[in-house]
This record gives sequence, C-alpha cells and structure tokens, in this order.
Amino acid sequence: MDFSELLAKRRSIRDYQEKEVSLDLVKAIIRESCLAPSATNGQPWRFIIIHDRKLMKRLSDESKRNLLALMEQSSSPLTSVYGAFLRNEDYNVYYNAPCLVFIVGRKNHRSLRVDCALAAGYFMFAATARGLGTCWIGLGLSIQDPELRQEIGLPDDYTIVAPIILGYPNSVPAQPSREPRILKIL
Amino acid sequence: MDFSELLAKRRSIRDYQEKEVSLDLVKAIIRESCLAPSATNGQPWRFIIIHDRKLMKRLSDESKRNLLALMEQSSSPLTSVYGAFLRNEDYNVYYNAPCLVFIVGRKNHRSLRVDCALAAGYFMFAATARGLGTCWIGLGLSIQDPELRQEIGLPDDYTIVAPIILGYPNSVPAQPSREPRILKIL
Repeated sequence: MDFSELLAKRRSIRDYQEKEVSLDLVKAIIRESCLAPSATNGQPWRFIIIHDRKLMKRLSDESKRNLLALMEQSSSPLTSVYGAFLRNEDYNVYYNAPCLVFIVGRKNHRSLRVDCALAAGYFMFAATARGLGTCWIGLGLSIQDPELRQEIGLPDDYTIVAPIILGYPNSVPAQPSREPRILKIL
Repeated sequence: MDFSELLAKRRSIRDYQEKEVSLDLVKAIIRESCLAPSATNGQPWRFIIIHDRKLMKRLSDESKRNLLALMEQSSSPLTSVYGAFLRNEDYNVYYNAPCLVFIVGRKNHRSLRVDCALAAGYFMFAATARGLGTCWIGLGLSIQDPELRQEIGLPDDYTIVAPIILGYPNSVPAQPSREPRILKIL
C-alpha cells in the first residue's frame, strides 16, 4: 500500500466486523510502532494488548465513571458534549472492536505524551497497511481502580497515553478535504 | 513507496544536501499532515515555513540561549548532556537543513501537544514518501523573544510544539532493530 492510499484509508473507525485480529498481527504492528522517533531516542512506550471483550467492557465502564466524575467536579465544558455518552450504560467507549491496545509509559518521563503519540501514529498506519482499522479513544484512558490496573499489568507510576481500538472495518469513510492553515512563509 | 519502505527510510536526518526544497513540495507535505487524527477532531495545528538560512541561524541562537538559561536555572540533568552543545557558538540546532517548519498551536488547546505530534508524524512520513529527510529538533522550540516571535508570525498565545527540519538527505541510516516491550496480553 503506497502512502497516498494509506492516507486515504487511515481513518478513525468506530464500526468493526466480528472477525478477530490475530495476536501475531497485533505484535507485528506493535513492532513497527517502536520505529517511531522519540525525544533523545528515549523510546518510553510500553504496550498492553487486550483482546477480551468482557474485560474491554469493564475498562470502558471504569473510564466512563472516572471521566464523568472529573467533568462534573471541574464543571468542564466537555460535560455537555460527553456527559450523555458517559451516562449511557449501553455506550461502550471502545465500540464493538475486537481488540484494544494501550500505549503507556512512566508518568515522569518528560516527553511521554508526545513520544507515545508518535508511536500511536505509527501504530495506526501499520494497522492500516494490513487492512485493519483503528481509533484513538480519548474517552477510554481513565483507568484508576488499583485492582483493575493490576489486572491489566499497569504499574502505579505508569499512565495510559493512547488507548487504540483495532479491528477489521465494516466500512472506511472517504478522505476529508482539509485546508492547511499556514501562519507565515519566510 | 510502500509502508515497509517508508518505515525503513523515515529516520532522523541531520546531514543534508545543499539542494533547496521547493515551497510547493513543503505545502503538499503540510496538506497531507492535516489528515492526521486529533482529539474531538479539533485540528489545532498551524504551520510556519522558514526557508531562510540566516533566519534559521538566529532562531537557533535564540532557542539555545533560552534552553541553556532554563537548564541552568533548574539544575536540569539535561544540562550535562546538552550544555556543551548549547554553549558552542558554531552549533546550529537545525543543522545544515535548507528548510524548517514549525508546527504550532494555541497554548490553551487541551490536546495540543499530542495532536501536533500526530500531525508531525504525518509530516515526516509525507516528506519521506517524497525522498526527503526530516528531524524533529527538540532543542529548537524555545523562541521567546517578542520581536522574533512577531517576525515569524507566532502569536503570543501560541506555542511551538514541533520544529521539524527538512531537506534532501546525504545518506539515510539503516533501520534499527527494536524489541517491543509488551507489559501484558489479556
């Protein structure tokens, strides 16, 4: 798949086929994600692979609960947008995807978020190149419960940067047209 | 260029040919960078293109001065690593690249750094697909001088997330071998 096709097909996918993604495929995608650049070549990314739909539902419930509490506490403007979703018991933030990968790292690593975002970009392209779809699930990163964190192997001093769902898409939306905003050319 | 070739050729390049990069090419790369995903589709990225080596030298000096002051002030462990570089008058943080693009955005945009990192990943792949080399220059983002900020069109409430140099590489290092660190599979 050449880059123009990758650009067209790498879209945020929220509707997946039932078909499972093989663990070998997920590992191959993670292997390629590690080729991303990172500040001072720190490579702070670590990965947790979850391909258990029942566990994904529990993680979704946990993240929804925590985000809703946070939004209500801080009167965030996001509450009006996401509150209804987060209060809906049937809403699974990971949609119907068969697989979820958390890109995580040590909280105190200086460039953690940016480095993991670069690895996430690689991950999404590597998945697209294999005919898979992905979506970075911003609502799915608030896993606070100590027992649940221990169950998924997430140490206390680690944080989840990128929760990415993965699966075979039912359909891929058309490529959008976007106008770059260039502030100045010198 | 297929994805495996892109993966092999997207390396951090610090040694460039004298050859200039056409502005049309830079704009095409920026156009593709805007296809990156972003939190709630916020697309907070803006771009500044600099293809003036004298200005790049002034920006390099400004960033070095500010980072050195910051490191000395905070007794950062990075001082021992970067202090010598930052004190060396001949060291240009943007190396000998013919072009520099700043990916910038409003400081108060919640997901700015992660969103701009995703756009930067797209930028680096889009450049690689055209035979160009790039390097994200972490030492090149501290532009504080109000006059210099005004000269490059960077508003007060904006920050530089990703300074990326761009040019035709003299050579491309071999693809590294990296072992992914998977914490758990569930």
